[in-house]
Amino acid sequence: MKCTVCRGPAVIDVRRHNANFCAEHFAKHCREQVGRAIHQFDMVHPGERVLVAVSGGKDSLALWDILLDLGYHADGFYIGLGIGEYSDESGSYARAFAERRGATLVEADLPGDFGFDVPTGSLAARRAPCSACGLSKRHLFDRAAIDGGYDVVATGHNLDDEAAVLFGNVLRWSTDYLGRQHPVLPEGHGFPRKVKPLVRLGEREMAAYCVIRGIDYIVEECPMAAGNRHLGYKEVLNEVEAQSPGTKNAFYFGFLERASHLFTPEAEAEQLELRPCERCGAPTPNDVCAFCMLVERAARR
Amino acid sequence: MKCTVCRGPAVIDVRRHNANFCAEHFAKHCREQVGRAIHQFDMVHPGERVLVAVSGGKDSLALWDILLDLGYHADGFYIGLGIGEYSDESGSYARAFAERRGATLVEADLPGDFGFDVPTGSLAARRAPCSACGLSKRHLFDRAAIDGGYDVVATGHNLDDEAAVLFGNVLRWSTDYLGRQHPVLPEGHGFPRKVKPLVRLGEREMAAYCVIRGIDYIVEECPMAAGNRHLGYKEVLNEVEAQSPGTKNAFYFGFLERASHLFTPEAEAEQLELRPCERCGAPTPNDVCAFCMLVERAARR
Repeated sequence: MKCTVCRGPAVIDVRRHNANFCAEHFAKHCREQVGRAIHQFDMVHPGERVLVAVSGGKDSLALWDILLDLGYHADGFYIGLGIGEYSDESGSYARAFAERRGATLVEADLPGDFGFDVPTGSLAARRAPCSACGLSKRHLFDRAAIDGGYDVVATGHNLDDEAAVLFGNVLRWSTDYLGRQHPVLPEGHGFPRKVKPLVRLGEREMAAYCVIRGIDYIVEECPMAAGNRHLGYKEVLNEVEAQSPGTKNAFYFGFLERASHLFTPEAEAEQLELRPCERCGAPTPNDVCAFCMLVERAARR
Repeated sequence: MKCTVCRGPAVIDVRRHNANFCAEHFAKHCREQVGRAIHQFDMVHPGERVLVAVSGGKDSLALWDILLDLGYHADGFYIGLGIGEYSDESGSYARAFAERRGATLVEADLPGDFGFDVPTGSLAARRAPCSACGLSKRHLFDRAAIDGGYDVVATGHNLDDEAAVLFGNVLRWSTDYLGRQHPVLPEGHGFPRKVKPLVRLGEREMAAYCVIRGIDYIVEECPMAAGNRHLGYKEVLNEVEAQSPGTKNAFYFGFLERASHLFTPEAEAEQLELRPCERCGAPTPNDVCAFCMLVERAARR
């Protein structure tokens, strides 16, 4: 197997691109794909400050690494979620990466700052753990970006993540979620801009990128996520992808090109109904935002 | 396991309905579901003549059986496709059923009437066999209905079929196909009305219906279809269904309720561009329809 670019020994194949890469050209390929995504979807403008949502996993650390290499002003933001050893370990990977790259890591801590962790918060709110966790992370990303004067929040969702989310949204025809599933959500209504620069790269590529670049990351899936539907959707899409390489890419980008606009009017109408949360000022369709409700319920337990 | 209706011994469970049935109440359940689909989507009106597209498989024979039991004037239409023993055998099941029920079976024969069979036609037209076959069947259904003065063509597509087709259409975001994927396609533009009264029933239920009613049908999949994508999509959806019973139903009917209307304008615009085929008069966007082109190419070989 030879590198498609330099004909040297290749270390990875990317079937949907019908290409093989040596370590050097694979890292270049990843940077190019991120650059293309940023350009294609107008994600970040010159001089803007980016806050990278860092979990300590392969995707967010690779994203941060690539954004720094591409010359962006990118700080990291890590949230301690209080998921036992998993959180301790993931935090240490995030901090080690920041130190190695001489980059700034902003931190928040759910138990320390808000008095609850994901396991107890999810029980208190009677939400699935991934639901309570996602809601908390989105809230804290937005707040950290606005408080810190960042223009953009960048998350490490890759093509596999987005295709699996799309599959779930389509299986249920959640037209509101479909209307918001875009690699760029513009700023406004009290939200910072949110971008997903890894949408042109798959999960396997992000793991390979970290190995090649010597980035240590938490390999285990979050213990709270085990057996969730999202992981099942990923497996199913992997089966289809194995039969027809390129299916995930065509599914996700075909949606963006030909269907996503059909669902946006509903999502935009919902945004118009947002107002500031009575307690924290975050945009919400209700008097009190879902995060403040979660904090309250967790405190009552 | 007891019948949900009469508490007698049950012979089948239907997980997505959370119900078990004895033989008698299962047959009743199937008839009710067909009746509900016909009513829900306004498929057949009183006094109309229905032509059932019969393949000799479980779905089409069960559909014909149920339509007759529900009191519809339903004749069968069988096409000999020239797929070796598979066609010989499937034809004999269709004829045996018609004789047993004292029903009328109209027949056409691709090799006898048009000089080619599906295997050679697909080679000649450089189409996948399922593509050449589907195109021929749709053409001959339409023609037989119009020539015979039938109001409606009914096909045996069940929930599993429609969910798998929808999955394929969504994976590729084939917005034109999505705009036409409906259990009723109205008459007009030179087409008879086409309906799918089995959309509320799954594949396993149709097989069980035939067993319970003593209907002999061809059990083998068509040998030309082996390994096609459609069957792969069915397997994948079966995995998701096993994890979350009701997923296929929610996927298909959620599409009809909340998304299909978003795709219809494009499909309707295409219909306006149809004109009669120069050779056979069937509606086509070109001078000569795809079926007449297939006949010509097959004759040239």
